[in-house]
Amino acid sequence: MNFIEKLLTISRKSNSLVCVGLDVDLDRIPKFLLREDDPIFVFNRAIVDATQDLVCAYKPNIAFYEALGVEGLVALKKTIEHIPSDIPVILDAKRGDIGYTAKMYARTCFEHYGCDAVTVNPYLGEDSIEPFLGYKDKCVFVLCLTSNQGAKDFQYFSNGNFPLYRLVAEKVKGWNKGRNCGLIVGAIRPEQLGEVRQVAPDLPFLIPGVGVQGGDVELAVRFGTNEHGELAIISSSRGIIYASSGRDFAGAARQATVRLRDEVNRWR
Amino acid sequence: MNFIEKLLTISRKSNSLVCVGLDVDLDRIPKFLLREDDPIFVFNRAIVDATQDLVCAYKPNIAFYEALGVEGLVALKKTIEHIPSDIPVILDAKRGDIGYTAKMYARTCFEHYGCDAVTVNPYLGEDSIEPFLGYKDKCVFVLCLTSNQGAKDFQYFSNGNFPLYRLVAEKVKGWNKGRNCGLIVGAIRPEQLGEVRQVAPDLPFLIPGVGVQGGDVELAVRFGTNEHGELAIISSSRGIIYASSGRDFAGAARQATVRLRDEVNRWR
Repeated sequence: MNFIEKLLTISRKSNSLVCVGLDVDLDRIPKFLLREDDPIFVFNRAIVDATQDLVCAYKPNIAFYEALGVEGLVALKKTIEHIPSDIPVILDAKRGDIGYTAKMYARTCFEHYGCDAVTVNPYLGEDSIEPFLGYKDKCVFVLCLTSNQGAKDFQYFSNGNFPLYRLVAEKVKGWNKGRNCGLIVGAIRPEQLGEVRQVAPDLPFLIPGVGVQGGDVELAVRFGTNEHGELAIISSSRGIIYASSGRDFAGAARQATVRLRDEVNRWR
Repeated sequence: MNFIEKLLTISRKSNSLVCVGLDVDLDRIPKFLLREDDPIFVFNRAIVDATQDLVCAYKPNIAFYEALGVEGLVALKKTIEHIPSDIPVILDAKRGDIGYTAKMYARTCFEHYGCDAVTVNPYLGEDSIEPFLGYKDKCVFVLCLTSNQGAKDFQYFSNGNFPLYRLVAEKVKGWNKGRNCGLIVGAIRPEQLGEVRQVAPDLPFLIPGVGVQGGDVELAVRFGTNEHGELAIISSSRGIIYASSGRDFAGAARQATVRLRDEVNRWR
């Protein structure tokens, strides 16, 4: 089963486009968990157990685990192994290097961590993406247009006819021969989201930026989904996993996920 | 002492612009080392011990260590700790993410691994670089123009007056208020290297691509150094560390480093 099929299957089963971002910071998880041997894994396990019937994917950002050293990366691996195998895991790593090195990153994401998808950076071009595309059942989400302030520095750079982010979308569409490419398009730029959706009607979109980053759910759904209201992965991290800092954190995360799922579905 | 001072001090002491890239692959190190408990560290230690009076920096690429899981990252940390403290260590990580996440990557590179510099990707713009710049004594090398085939996909995208890589150079120059920015410019594009050097006469340049990637040393030195023949870090990995696959690998690496240092110095 390739990634698109896996994504559509779980998304229909759970009736959800919501992806929970597992960006876990020891400074922000409930204090009582710090007494555990492996607080990060215990936290993630509780979040996954409380939300797994409500999502279409999980997205751990490896930066948060790396920052904790070896223990963090062990917790990441255990977390990925704990996620039910029918739910895609997108490793948010934003990697990008020349081909020889990119092969190593691809091996880490897909073989060592066993993820279903990875996020990558387009700046080094096709040969930096190719080693990831060699994994036919996986998916490679390429950064296209992001929701942060700095997006304007380079992503809107234009040749007079179209901006860089659009060139990225066109190129990635061309690299999608194995149906294993996707695009990352931030939720806070709905017009551009619609423009990119027109360029690439069949690609899965990873849409971060709803919740804490201020993205509008209605616009993300209306402009980001395909013609069947599918293939958009609407990701929220802090708004869900830190919904409560008390003993009810998992229940609160579940409620926040239900709310987001229902709000998303209202606009599909 | 800030990064520039540290770089110039060691570079003058060793009379060298050469950086050895520690991109270690278990499939390529001498077979007899595989019997060691920690073959990667033993290999790196021998390379460092054999070359430390000949270089201005070491540059481990974290991709190669990540691919080996926890053991690889432990070997990376031990390697960094083994490098003499007056030689800058550039962690080649090419990271890039929104500010909240970039802070985690900066912490990993500078605090967990204790590196002197890191390589980053510009695609997400200023707020993705800012958390790294908060470390005043460190250096942040931003990808500008690379030596791989895929560089042409986006880096040459032009607004009619100048290409993206030049915009990156201009922006990074503007971000260099703390004198802790650098640029990565591949060795195989000498005219562009000269163009970027004109934009940023005072920035340190990390110049990969000599050796296996085919870059021309003469052109890299003539166009990449500043007016004093300094501030260029000429990096070679495979051409040095795999100079021999036998028991003489460290001696062969030393000879290859001497050759590259002398060839570089001929054109300064």
